[in-house]
Amino acid sequence: MKRKLGPKTLVHPLPAVLVGTYSEGGTPNAMTAAWCSTCCMDPPCVGVAVRRERLTRVNIERTRAFTVNIPSTSLAAKVDYIGIVSGRDQADKLDRAGMRTERAGLVDAPLVVDCPVCLECSLKDRLAIGSHTWFVGEVLEAHVDEQAFTSAGDLDPKLIDPLVYCSSDHCYYGLGARVARAFSAGKKLSRSPR
Amino acid sequence: MKRKLGPKTLVHPLPAVLVGTYSEGGTPNAMTAAWCSTCCMDPPCVGVAVRRERLTRVNIERTRAFTVNIPSTSLAAKVDYIGIVSGRDQADKLDRAGMRTERAGLVDAPLVVDCPVCLECSLKDRLAIGSHTWFVGEVLEAHVDEQAFTSAGDLDPKLIDPLVYCSSDHCYYGLGARVARAFSAGKKLSRSPR
Repeated sequence: MKRKLGPKTLVHPLPAVLVGTYSEGGTPNAMTAAWCSTCCMDPPCVGVAVRRERLTRVNIERTRAFTVNIPSTSLAAKVDYIGIVSGRDQADKLDRAGMRTERAGLVDAPLVVDCPVCLECSLKDRLAIGSHTWFVGEVLEAHVDEQAFTSAGDLDPKLIDPLVYCSSDHCYYGLGARVARAFSAGKKLSRSPR
Repeated sequence: MKRKLGPKTLVHPLPAVLVGTYSEGGTPNAMTAAWCSTCCMDPPCVGVAVRRERLTRVNIERTRAFTVNIPSTSLAAKVDYIGIVSGRDQADKLDRAGMRTERAGLVDAPLVVDCPVCLECSLKDRLAIGSHTWFVGEVLEAHVDEQAFTSAGDLDPKLIDPLVYCSSDHCYYGLGARVARAFSAGKKLSRSPR
């Protein structure tokens, strides 16, 4: 039996990321976003929903660039702080959170280097939906901590230890146990006779 | 130290969902998608990236509707199968996977009722990006299993037990431990003096 909850956007779970931009004058800024997803393979693009009133919206439209930075669970309180406070009110909020930035190599936006994964994105397109605009950035470079690779050289999401957001209880989670391998676990079903 | 991996879309993690549509003639179909996110609050909207060649793209454009269904980890192999096989080749793939559907109440699309969360979406907008199109659906109704609520009546993501996808190793995961409460854990930082 299911309960009807009305028009609620209960997509579970979503990544909790920091969207990095430069404010006018070159101050690095970031906002916390969970409404973020890969949205194209060729070219490789990432999208993020930004509310119209946000400083990040103004910054992306001016610089035509942003970064998507994936924090580890150890950064949860800092990530939450960056989501609570606007760069309009505390221009030094990244400093205050103890989050270090570096200028990205290919786009006009700051990498939040304390995050194990940083993606440099060049604004490719945008879609104004309602309260939020979906900004599509073409990923030009991905930077990943050496510690996120296994000794065999494979990228291991458990070593990234990404922060995960659930909208249903407004809480951050970690990544759980590995359940199955994609493009593999379902093969036995496709082979089975009716 | 970070390693540069080139233009890779390493957003972590993403939800593994089933996008439900009706094929021509009314056969229920679904595709597995991880490139899916809430993308607007007002109106409440969910977006999903669909490759141009997919039957789901044709179906959404004809019916102007789709559902987003969030499976539990116990459904991993079935979800993976639904992602491997096209409804063009196996029109009965949902049946074959043992996944039951029901017509949605408000839109022309099937709910995959074995999933604990089903969202009815009416196509609101679309953005052709490259290989993929970002389809924006306005959520008209959310259906959630009674078992996903605590005895206090709160929705608990651990009871939904959503399937989580990581693109870096192409594996499905479960949801891990709760780390912090959003809009709360960061407050102590916003109050602290410099």
